[in-house]
Amino acid sequence: RHFHFCKLPGRVMGIRLLRFTSVVIVVLLLVAGALTALLPTIKDDKMPNLRREPKAQSQSALDSFTLIMQTYNRTDLLLKLLNHYQAIPHLHKVIVVWNNIGEKIPEEMWNSLGPHPVPVVFKVQTVNRMRNRLQNFPELETKAVLMMDDDTLVSAHDLAFAFSVWQQFPEHIVGFVPRKHISTPSGVYSYGSFELQNPGFGNGDQYSMVLIGAAFFHSGYLEDFQRQPEAVYALIDETQNCDDIAMNFLVAKHTGKPSGVFVKPVDIRNLEKDTNSGYSGMWHRAEHLLQRSYCVNKLVNIYDGMPLKYSNIMISQFGFPNYANHKNKM
Amino acid sequence: RHFHFCKLPGRVMGIRLLRFTSVVIVVLLLVAGALTALLPTIKDDKMPNLRREPKAQSQSALDSFTLIMQTYNRTDLLLKLLNHYQAIPHLHKVIVVWNNIGEKIPEEMWNSLGPHPVPVVFKVQTVNRMRNRLQNFPELETKAVLMMDDDTLVSAHDLAFAFSVWQQFPEHIVGFVPRKHISTPSGVYSYGSFELQNPGFGNGDQYSMVLIGAAFFHSGYLEDFQRQPEAVYALIDETQNCDDIAMNFLVAKHTGKPSGVFVKPVDIRNLEKDTNSGYSGMWHRAEHLLQRSYCVNKLVNIYDGMPLKYSNIMISQFGFPNYANHKNKM
Repeated sequence: RHFHFCKLPGRVMGIRLLRFTSVVIVVLLLVAGALTALLPTIKDDKMPNLRREPKAQSQSALDSFTLIMQTYNRTDLLLKLLNHYQAIPHLHKVIVVWNNIGEKIPEEMWNSLGPHPVPVVFKVQTVNRMRNRLQNFPELETKAVLMMDDDTLVSAHDLAFAFSVWQQFPEHIVGFVPRKHISTPSGVYSYGSFELQNPGFGNGDQYSMVLIGAAFFHSGYLEDFQRQPEAVYALIDETQNCDDIAMNFLVAKHTGKPSGVFVKPVDIRNLEKDTNSGYSGMWHRAEHLLQRSYCVNKLVNIYDGMPLKYSNIMISQFGFPNYANHKNKM
Repeated sequence: RHFHFCKLPGRVMGIRLLRFTSVVIVVLLLVAGALTALLPTIKDDKMPNLRREPKAQSQSALDSFTLIMQTYNRTDLLLKLLNHYQAIPHLHKVIVVWNNIGEKIPEEMWNSLGPHPVPVVFKVQTVNRMRNRLQNFPELETKAVLMMDDDTLVSAHDLAFAFSVWQQFPEHIVGFVPRKHISTPSGVYSYGSFELQNPGFGNGDQYSMVLIGAAFFHSGYLEDFQRQPEAVYALIDETQNCDDIAMNFLVAKHTGKPSGVFVKPVDIRNLEKDTNSGYSGMWHRAEHLLQRSYCVNKLVNIYDGMPLKYSNIMISQFGFPNYANHKNKM
């Protein structure tokens, strides 16, 4: 049919049309030129979100990131972390996702101890949900999101380096905690870490997910998360778990590559013991790991396939912390 | 002027032309469609050479590499290395660049000790030149080239991993030996390694070159090397040095990014001491390093600018050699 259209001109061609044809050719060239000029850059290509950028962005918003931290039942820890993270290089804003339903936010106290170098926005939630932190917050003005659990401390140096790595891999989740799924002969997937290995896999190890509790990723993915099947939200709410696994599925589907890039942290700590609330993280629940294997299999059903891919790339900073870390001292 | 052309149809428009215009629109859509279909993939985009692929390539040629090794005056070492490298995974062919002018190649002996798993081609040269190894050899059928100095041994494991990294960074030189240039207030560049540091540079170190004496790179760059300014060849021949620096300039100019990706080797060795020829590598010459700084400055003049960019990314294999190498033990 296309071909038929293309032939038409030949049949109705007249003198005027000849002149007109030259115009057509010029127009075609112009269109070709225009389209070429419009070729997406590599990053755009991987990031449709970059093209439908929702907000005007200041320069600083382009080379900086927003810290999103969800908190529940550990306000003392939260305040410690807010202080720790106030002066990270390239930090544009902090968004605190307040899951302490009905509890007053510590904004007054926070402000009374100001001034603070970076603005902190408290987002009061109406329901305590794991996936509250995955909203496309209007206050979010940067392309880069740093998401941190409210019990995890990563050194400023690790964060600055990981951000520079993310800028080179903006379509990936660039973070400090790798995990993997493995296939079993039964066809059921299992979730885990170094203790699991795919049968017959050679030297070394692999990961297929990078957890978002300590990672950089593109804000466009928060937008994409709003357009997932209802069953995904139901699964996350039912388990109060697995939002990070779902994000890795989403990114892997979007890129067709491994979802994450693992940056080896020099100094990462869990501050859980420092809280006085006595509350300890969800991952201590007996069913936590079982749930995560359950989620992997559920998500494979929902998305009708396993999008996660393996990577064995580990990135460290050349010459840091010791100048000769490129010399092998195993 | 373009705009003027676009308006023309409006003026000469008639009934027939109206019908014709719809055809034009369809044609435009077809062109748009075609152009979209022709959008380069990321790798093609970085690698024009992929598009003007000179030779038909077997599947194995696509997921394998060619080892190019230049040798001079250390045939005993060469034979050792040929044996070492015969069974590397994904090795498609070995090309030996024979710089021992007038000397017989050891092909007979090599064949008498066959069969060998991988074909070895001896390329007899007429002049002993450093840049002989940078020819676009007709025997080269793979996209990936592994170039090794004739005194360097890298473990099969490191090579297999680095090849997998190269497949993810095909427009870069992926190798095991990082170097850098630094700027001085005088405007003169200096060449070196960890002992040099840019003034006021923060934590850690950087590199701006990856030497091709132990690296993977795209065969298209050998093609590109044939189209460099004469002055580049003259510089390399005059110094019998710096061909690797020139390649880094070429790649950096081509990509607009850092030329190299540094893979931290687990086991790399210099076998120089194992030769009976008593001959030791060019890099022992007193003037070697001075020449390399000299070359950097010359190349900046020839290319009218400094294309080299810094990187501080160091890639290791996750979980190898020890399963917990992602845990920090500094």
